[in-house]
Amino acid sequence: MNRLITLTTDFGLSDGFVGMMKGVILNINPDATIVDITHDIAPQNIEEGAFLFANASRFFPAHAIHVVVVDPGVGTARRPIALQTGETFFVAPDNGVLSRTLRADHASSAIRAVHLNRAEYWLAHISNTFHGRDIFAPVAAHLSRGVSLDALGDPIDDWARIEIALPTRDANGALIGKVIHIDRFGNAITNIAAEMLAGLDRAEIEIAGRVMRGIRATYADGAPGEPIALISSSGHLEIARREANAAKSLQIEIGNQIRVSP
Amino acid sequence: MNRLITLTTDFGLSDGFVGMMKGVILNINPDATIVDITHDIAPQNIEEGAFLFANASRFFPAHAIHVVVVDPGVGTARRPIALQTGETFFVAPDNGVLSRTLRADHASSAIRAVHLNRAEYWLAHISNTFHGRDIFAPVAAHLSRGVSLDALGDPIDDWARIEIALPTRDANGALIGKVIHIDRFGNAITNIAAEMLAGLDRAEIEIAGRVMRGIRATYADGAPGEPIALISSSGHLEIARREANAAKSLQIEIGNQIRVSP
Amino acid sequence: MNRLITLTTDFGLSDGFVGMMKGVILNINPDATIVDITHDIAPQNIEEGAFLFANASRFFPAHAIHVVVVDPGVGTARRPIALQTGETFFVAPDNGVLSRTLRADHASSAIRAVHLNRAEYWLAHISNTFHGRDIFAPVAAHLSRGVSLDALGDPIDDWARIEIALPTRDANGALIGKVIHIDRFGNAITNIAAEMLAGLDRAEIEIAGRVMRGIRATYADGAPGEPIALISSSGHLEIARREANAAKSLQIEIGNQIRVSP
Repeated sequence: MNRLITLTTDFGLSDGFVGMMKGVILNINPDATIVDITHDIAPQNIEEGAFLFANASRFFPAHAIHVVVVDPGVGTARRPIALQTGETFFVAPDNGVLSRTLRADHASSAIRAVHLNRAEYWLAHISNTFHGRDIFAPVAAHLSRGVSLDALGDPIDDWARIEIALPTRDANGALIGKVIHIDRFGNAITNIAAEMLAGLDRAEIEIAGRVMRGIRATYADGAPGEPIALISSSGHLEIARREANAAKSLQIEIGNQIRVSP
Repeated sequence: MNRLITLTTDFGLSDGFVGMMKGVILNINPDATIVDITHDIAPQNIEEGAFLFANASRFFPAHAIHVVVVDPGVGTARRPIALQTGETFFVAPDNGVLSRTLRADHASSAIRAVHLNRAEYWLAHISNTFHGRDIFAPVAAHLSRGVSLDALGDPIDDWARIEIALPTRDANGALIGKVIHIDRFGNAITNIAAEMLAGLDRAEIEIAGRVMRGIRATYADGAPGEPIALISSSGHLEIARREANAAKSLQIEIGNQIRVSP
Repeated sequence: MNRLITLTTDFGLSDGFVGMMKGVILNINPDATIVDITHDIAPQNIEEGAFLFANASRFFPAHAIHVVVVDPGVGTARRPIALQTGETFFVAPDNGVLSRTLRADHASSAIRAVHLNRAEYWLAHISNTFHGRDIFAPVAAHLSRGVSLDALGDPIDDWARIEIALPTRDANGALIGKVIHIDRFGNAITNIAAEMLAGLDRAEIEIAGRVMRGIRATYADGAPGEPIALISSSGHLEIARREANAAKSLQIEIGNQIRVSP
């Protein structure tokens, strides 16, 4: 069995933290294939981690083992957990960072979860500040070698979900959403899913004091420098500028409100 | 068959874009070996992408499949293409990003090219903004499993080349070039290839209002802080400062002119 | 034999340097497993490289081949070297970047070293500025295929060590150390190892004009925003702030003194 292990963290690539996790995994399973999703989640930002991981994880094989570590509560009573749904495993701190993925993809009843409390599947020495290396990485490596979920800890069903902020509608029928991520290109991605925009191709879109008209098909549909709205590759309404950084030039920030009026 | 797939993009590592491409590839070919060349090309900078990719690709095995995505025209009529020369494959948008590599390495007549227009080798759903994930990654994965170039689309011979700016000579016999890349250390790499510098070891070199004399062998040939010219590891004339950031301290930018007078 | 090769450098990920090293390795050994430890060591900072590598390398399998390139003297008379201790190999410039690792882990007498001077194990063309690609990567690849240390060069025993600054004690019995690394989260890691802190759980800790009392167990033991001292995951005394960047907000820099008074 050669299961794929993915890593999503807020550890960055500068300090060797991610390298250590890979060392730990390869010590336990020298044949593991390890893929980085991202390590640049804003430090301790569970909501951003939940969004970026949900976006990316759906493109991986069903038999993947996903390790997701955004962990402000490391060293406290927050539980380390592992979840299984179908052939897919998730290993994470119990703080809701998996909420978006598991909401979108699976009926809750099909999810089995355990509290990781069998220290024989961890490193021998456990620090209080780096469970990614000491608990989550070795647990994922053992799963990749065929250890079963049940062996790793006691079953639980009260693992944490976080509230995913959904768009609302105001009295005039306008859709009110917010910016949830800004990507490397400066595109501002909102929490308004494409499905909610049926019949709104010609809508008036308002954000950060700007008004745009209509939803375009692609970046090049804007004149150079023109702010435009389109559907991002994540399937959400996005504000962009052709060959420019929309967020920087329009002063859009995470959390900003967006209004889509019919 | 276990072909190597390389990835060169302007996607950065923060948003999970590259992770998604790897997920797509491993879904199609679980045994693929994937290597990152760089993902930090300046957004939409085809010329920089062409330079960095040409530099790096010559160190990879001949049987590699190179995916190069700097794609300002994503979602427009610009074609997705694949090229083959000998055992090597290239998968990219048709915008000239491969020009330097194919100019340097191969006679054009030996290159076969196709317009990627067989959707059965793509993801089922194609976004308008992320063909790296939806078209280029799956096509590379299919190539790595032995699918032939011909199966992927119709043959073309008018794929895009971009003009590579070559140095010129002025009336006094001086070589006039320009800065095409600044690396992490602040070294400014120019478009003047080492071959053009025969007999110019003692030349006068002028850039950003500074004059230097001669071409040194290595960084340590400069006094600490002294600006020096030498041959970079890419085989081009480079301006550096020993244990310092030359571009920042001398205010050198991409596009700056450099003059080498005998 | 499929030995693991790790890479630790100050090359960054932007310029394709690390990609080239991987291309060189895979050209020689297509089955090599390559893991990045970090490529973000501050340019030419041997001391930081030594610290980050020593931290990470102990989590890798004993049969790993570690390539560590922080190389301000590239192209000069400084020797390229390879070392072996037990099953583990190290490949690096001879400038002390391995000092922390080999001091901590091994009795010197058990280390065998060679001066890499057999060009048949290098690339055909050697630049003066990038031995990571031209010498260290191919040597590691040959080691991973089973070439012996002895084949790579002449034995030496005078390879460079750098002085590792150890904490001292002042007349009042206080421990005086210094900050040696600041991580992505802004935690300031010092050179005071946990073993030196026995009986000092309630010590007074002074740094950058601040005084803290006692050593906490984990980040969450601080009130939000409170500066605290705790043991880092590297096993050293660390200054942090709960869910905040301690180094930035307290203006702590590498080299700052820390005093621990009983």
